[in-house]
This record gives sequence, C-alpha cells and structure tokens, in this order.
Amino acid sequence: MADALIEALVAAVGARDVLVDDDVRASYETDWTRRFHGRARAVVRPAGAEDVVAVLAACREHGAAIVPQGGNTGMVGGGVPRGGEVVLSLGRLRELGEVDRATGQVTVGAGVTLAALQAQARAAGLDAGVDFGGRDSATIGGMVATNAGGIQAIRHGTVRARVAGLQAVLGDGAIVDRRAGLLKDNAGYDLPALLVGSEGTLGVVTSVRWRLVPLLTARVAALIALPSVAAVAELLARVRPELASLQAAELMTDEGMRLVLDHLGASSPLAGDAPAYLLLECAGRADPTDELVSALDGAGVQDAVIADEAGELDRLWRLREGYTEALNAAGIPHKMDVGVPLSQLPRFAEEVVTAVQRVAPDARTIVFGHLGDGNVHVNVLGPDPEDDAVDEAVLRLAAACGGTISAEHGVGVAKARWLSLTRSADELHAMRAIKRALDPDGVLNPGAVLPAG
Amino acid sequence: MADALIEALVAAVGARDVLVDDDVRASYETDWTRRFHGRARAVVRPAGAEDVVAVLAACREHGAAIVPQGGNTGMVGGGVPRGGEVVLSLGRLRELGEVDRATGQVTVGAGVTLAALQAQARAAGLDAGVDFGGRDSATIGGMVATNAGGIQAIRHGTVRARVAGLQAVLGDGAIVDRRAGLLKDNAGYDLPALLVGSEGTLGVVTSVRWRLVPLLTARVAALIALPSVAAVAELLARVRPELASLQAAELMTDEGMRLVLDHLGASSPLAGDAPAYLLLECAGRADPTDELVSALDGAGVQDAVIADEAGELDRLWRLREGYTEALNAAGIPHKMDVGVPLSQLPRFAEEVVTAVQRVAPDARTIVFGHLGDGNVHVNVLGPDPEDDAVDEAVLRLAAACGGTISAEHGVGVAKARWLSLTRSADELHAMRAIKRALDPDGVLNPGAVLPAG
Repeated sequence: MADALIEALVAAVGARDVLVDDDVRASYETDWTRRFHGRARAVVRPAGAEDVVAVLAACREHGAAIVPQGGNTGMVGGGVPRGGEVVLSLGRLRELGEVDRATGQVTVGAGVTLAALQAQARAAGLDAGVDFGGRDSATIGGMVATNAGGIQAIRHGTVRARVAGLQAVLGDGAIVDRRAGLLKDNAGYDLPALLVGSEGTLGVVTSVRWRLVPLLTARVAALIALPSVAAVAELLARVRPELASLQAAELMTDEGMRLVLDHLGASSPLAGDAPAYLLLECAGRADPTDELVSALDGAGVQDAVIADEAGELDRLWRLREGYTEALNAAGIPHKMDVGVPLSQLPRFAEEVVTAVQRVAPDARTIVFGHLGDGNVHVNVLGPDPEDDAVDEAVLRLAAACGGTISAEHGVGVAKARWLSLTRSADELHAMRAIKRALDPDGVLNPGAVLPAG
Repeated sequence: MADALIEALVAAVGARDVLVDDDVRASYETDWTRRFHGRARAVVRPAGAEDVVAVLAACREHGAAIVPQGGNTGMVGGGVPRGGEVVLSLGRLRELGEVDRATGQVTVGAGVTLAALQAQARAAGLDAGVDFGGRDSATIGGMVATNAGGIQAIRHGTVRARVAGLQAVLGDGAIVDRRAGLLKDNAGYDLPALLVGSEGTLGVVTSVRWRLVPLLTARVAALIALPSVAAVAELLARVRPELASLQAAELMTDEGMRLVLDHLGASSPLAGDAPAYLLLECAGRADPTDELVSALDGAGVQDAVIADEAGELDRLWRLREGYTEALNAAGIPHKMDVGVPLSQLPRFAEEVVTAVQRVAPDARTIVFGHLGDGNVHVNVLGPDPEDDAVDEAVLRLAAACGGTISAEHGVGVAKARWLSLTRSADELHAMRAIKRALDPDGVLNPGAVLPAG
C-alpha cells in the first residue's frame, strides 16, 4: 500500500523530489517551536501547480493526506505532519518576476522567502510591506496561507492586503488562477480572499501576485520606558493620530527585557529598568524624526531613547527581535498569540499572569507584542510542552476580553479545539461546509483549523 | 400560496414593513440603469439580522427566492427582481456608531449611505476612504456586497480593504458576526472576505465594521489635455512613482467631454479640444500642489489646468461626475465596466470602437474610467437595451486583453452568462460548490453571478 503511493508520487514529480529517507525527512517533520512533530510518509517537492495537481490525485487515489509546508516557520503545528501524512514542500517554487513599476506589483512563487521578496522590491524602489523576524526562512506561500502579520501591519495591514491575486490548487485538484494584477476585478467570488488564511486546508498556494508599497528609507525609532502596560496603551492612543508615518508600535515588559538583555549579553539603552516599554518606529520619504519627537514631547514623554541611524536602529530592534531566540534558549515555551481590543489590553496583561499561575504556579509568563494591532504574544516557560492547561487558560481570557484566540499565527492543530471560544456554532458550520465544498475528500491538512466533529 | 408567504413575512417583520401595493413596490423594481426590472412578490424591510433570519426562513418554507437590495444604485441588475422574488430592502438598518479614534474604525448598518458615513468620519477627523458619484444613495451593505470601487481605489483599494469585519446572514439562516475590529484575527476562514463581492448570493450583509483612513483636506487637481489614450497611460506611468499623494487618476476622451459639456451647458476649462484627457487629484495633510506641479513639469506637460480651491476643484470634478447623468439624458446606455492591465489600455481603447461598430454600426461608444486601476467604463448609446451583442463584443475584447468582464460593477444578472470568459471551468466549479455550501436551497439572488448549468 505504502509502496503504491510512493510510486504514484514518483510518477507525479520524479524520484529526486520524493524524499523517504529518515534523515532527509527529519527537518520537515518538526516545526519551529519544537512542540509539534510527526512522521511523514514522504516529503514531496513539486515544481509547479501541475505537479501539485498530480500529487493531490496520487494522494486521493491512495487515501493519503497532505500537509502543505512552506519555510516551516509556523508556530501552531499546521505545517508539520501529525503522523503518516505526505508533506508537500513548496520550496522549489522560487519564481521571482520583474517588478511592474506602473502597478507596483510582482509575481512571486510560493517558495520564495520574504527576505528575497524584500530585496527584489527594494531594488525597484519599492518594498514588500510586510516584515517579521522569520524573514530569511518564511516563504510567500506559507505567509499567504496563514495571512501573516508582523510588525508593519499597523501601517500596511496583514498579508491579505498585499495579495492582488494568486494561483492555487484546491483539494479536489481544481486550479484557481487570478494573477492578472487587476486592482478591481469583481467577476465572481474572490477565491483568493478565501484561501488567504485558510492554512492549507482548502487549497495549496503555488504563486502570488504581490502588491508592493512605497519604499520609505528615512526611519526613526524610539524606546520609551513607562510605569505600566496601561500607560503604554494610553501613550499609543495619544500619539497615534499625530503620527502619519507610524509603522510599528511594539509592547515589551520588564521581564522580557531582562530575558533578552541577558541572552544578548547587552545592557539596556535606557538609564534604568521600567515595568513596561513602548518601541515606536516611524518611516517616510522625508525624515520623520521631527514628527516623532514633537508627538512624544506633546505627550510629556521624558524617559526615551531616539534612534535615527542604522546602527542605533538595529540595536533597538535587536531587543524586540531577540525575544524568540531568548525564549527558545530558556526552554520550550508555550506560545500563545492572541488579540484583544486595545481598550482591554491593560486588563488582559494584568489578568494573564494570574490566569497562568492558577494552572501552573511556577510558570514564567512573558508578554510582548504588536501593540498597535492589539496583538499580544504570551509566552509561558515551565509547564511541560504537552500540557495544554496553560494554553487554554490564556485563550479563554483573550476570548473573555472580546479578543481572538489567534491574531497572526493561525489555528493550526494547536488551537483547533478552542476555535469555538471565539467563533459561533453557525460560523463553524459554515466553515465546515466550505471545507467539504473545496476539499470533498478531506485530503488537505486534516486536523488543522477545524476541530473534529 | 402567495398569501401564506405574505403572512409569514408579516409574522417576520410586521405588516408595516411588508410592501405589496404596486405603486409602493415600483421604486424597488427597477434599477439605476433602467435596463433591469421585474415584478417583486413583496418588498420586505427588516430591522436587523434576526429579522433577516426570519425572512429567509419564511422564504425557504414557501419556496420563494430573495433579492437583497441596498440603495438600488447597481448597474448590472443584481439588486432588482427578475420576476416574482421577494425584495429584501436593507434601508432600515441605519445604525451609525461612534468613531473609535484609537483604531480608526466605526460600526455602520447596511442601510447607511456612503455620504452619511463620510460625514460621520470627517466629523472625527478621519475619512471613509471610498468615494463615487452615487454617494447619496449607495448604501454600505450594497457597497460591501458588491466590493464597490470608485475614484479613490488607486490610493485606498476597493471596499474590501475597508472591511475590518461584518455581520451577515447566510442563505441557510446562519449568522456570521466578526465586528470586534481586530486588525489581526486568524481564527478560522475569513467568511467576511468571502462575502465581500459575492453580490448577495451567499449571504445578506447587515452591519459592517469599517476601517477609516486619515482625512486629507489639502487637495489639488489637474486636468491635462493629451493627444491620445496611449499618451494618457504613458503620462500616468511616468508621474505615478513621484506622486505619493495621488488619489485619483481619471481618463476621459473628446467624445465624452463634449457630451458632458453640452449636458452641463458649460465650456471647457482648457483652451481647446483634445483627443484625450487625464484628471489627476492629489491630497495630503500638507498642500500637495508643489508635488503635483513639479511632477507634471518634469514630464513636460504643457496643456493643463490646475485647481486647488474648492470651487475650481468642484468644477473639474463635475466634468467627470457628469458622465452618468449626461449619458442617461442621451438614452439608455449599455454600460460595460471592464478592467484591463494598464499596458493593454491603449489597444483596448482603440479596438473597442471597432468591435462595437461591427455589431452596431450606428452606435456611439464613450470610454472613460479610473485609469489608475485599469478600470474602463464603456458606454454605448444606440442599440436596443435588450440587445446584448454589443455587451458581448466589449466583454470579449476585455478578456482578450487579459482583463476582466467586471472591474467594479459586479456580475449581477447582466454578465453571468459571460463569466466563463475570464473564469476557468475549475473556478466556476469551485464557486458553485461554495454557493451550494452556504445557500443550499438557492434562495439568495438566483441568477446573479453564477450562470445557470
């Protein structure tokens, strides 16, 4: 049975791109968090949409399930096998077209990394409009499938806003292709819009028509020490209307700052410690420093470091981007990525520590995130990776605050069982009906997004 | 049979809001273009989502179909009955919430007009981010259901980009509600994104969480005379990268300009006639006049009128916005709203006149549109309103140019049979599967969007 499947996969993409050896498969079987892993029956590397159609047909024929995988930088186990699936790795789809300057668009294969897209865009005087720490590994296909967010969403929106169209293969083998780059195209349902964020459960994204944004090279950042998370939220609400050039507003706390400084062996750029920090970045064609400084002065900010040179900017951003590494070095954290309305953020930040302690008294809870989007990353060190009482406590609190159980990481397999915390029975019913409509045999990423039942 | 339906509708929303008299129904039975009309069995005016659920149940029970209707400003017959349906008019859903300045969002009922939303936004120092001639009649529900475009899409995108979430009732009576205003919310399929642009065939939009944009009060416009459509497209491509403040780029031609000037009884603001015109508008917090003038100087533009005072701006825009009225006064035009990639626009503009003449030798073809989006409105005066040979010729040419048969007006009933010109059999199959999944009884807007078969 297994041999017949492998033979069919080899017929689909060639023997070179069907990986079956244990050691070759290994890097495809465990995700970034190390919490999620499973054995793959094979790893298949298609060269394009037609190959994907053939792989899907082979898997449907032999009753095998497929887990699509991009750069494998997911946080919720949606891109690694649960056990026995075929991993469909899109890494070979590396087409990177010429930038069309008149429309500000480019066609980019699913396997291209974010960093490569950023470089291509910048060489044409434009920019990708999305940025996050995993840029060297994360790929466009995965970013579209998971509607990636990141640090610039406050300005440019999530990846959804960057998709002018895409090519994908649906679960039943149908090819969707809408890459003409027409800003207005109201001819039938927007299948691309449905596929964005569907986490490989409805279709496999193979190529994307990407909307670029203007390249804003004049940058300035400020790290501001504040007495509480509430003060951070208040300051952002106060200065936001004055900062047309704002493109990042990150929240950090004392606990996380100490963890990162220790990990980096660095000292704080500020004079002393503080309970909470706000990291702002503004960018424009013209230097936005005056705009930022004047807004902070107007708000009575006293304890701040301003960075407007490349080296200083990098130094500030290392503090924020160092979180993932510092946390991973300290253990296998439970990573919860929730969203709450800005008005509820101080309540959430205060109550989450207690909520975690109730189920894991010795746990260390570290909160940070993309404040402007109400997107909070809650990392808990201590509890066993397999024990999800902590996850549930955090997700229930986010739901109670009117928020979401997943802001930018997606549902994956990690959160599927809790989807009903913020989606009604009516909505889950509609999602299941759509899943059956586009993937009638349930071959794509079973167990991800939708809870069983 | 009919009486039992009416009784059930009265039970759902009350007798006052079930309109059955011929003269009261009349205004709901014919659309803006006057090309589309049909008898309604009744017009029902729900007060909210729960009412809509009850109306849908009554119609399913009695085998009646429903045509949802907003401000009835549609151009493709998607919002008026074909004959015998129940019209579901959302005009009573006029909730208009307070603007949340921290997130720049507002909750707005389906029946609120665009003009009312604009006024509410501007009072809070923000703006709606969408504008078009029908602003006093078009309603938010209809704009979301049809993914309206308009003149500012070049800057802010179509209505899709403004929807932070929505409430809707699906064909099977399920309520979708995602109005917490979370910029990042990757918890399950984005049902709102699928509903945007589905033209009332999957669900009825009842309320929308709207993302506002900064209010840019410093405006400047330029009307530029050029020797050809190709020259207009070239000029736009040339100046676009320099105009960060660009928010409209409209194409007009000599034939349309003369029609509008005659209708308005006005004279041209330019010295003489020209084959083609480009109307540009820039807006910012700071005065964008220098940016515009310098870009036009750099491109060697000679024959232009610059308007930076309110009265002058209105005068220029009247020329562009006068098209609909002037055309309607001249007859019942065939209105085709197509999109073509900018690179194909000169070819399209040239060939469309010949293509029309081939099937309607005496027709008058007037081309104008939103150049920056590749969105061309083709209006043909002369042929009988029921004769669609002209429509087909224009749509086939748009498809041959790699474009779309509907840029912003949607498919409605007018273009359903031609959807296959730009959507593959695979894509139509997927759309039909989604329709069956969310509206299994086919009660919502039958005949719109999807061709029979």
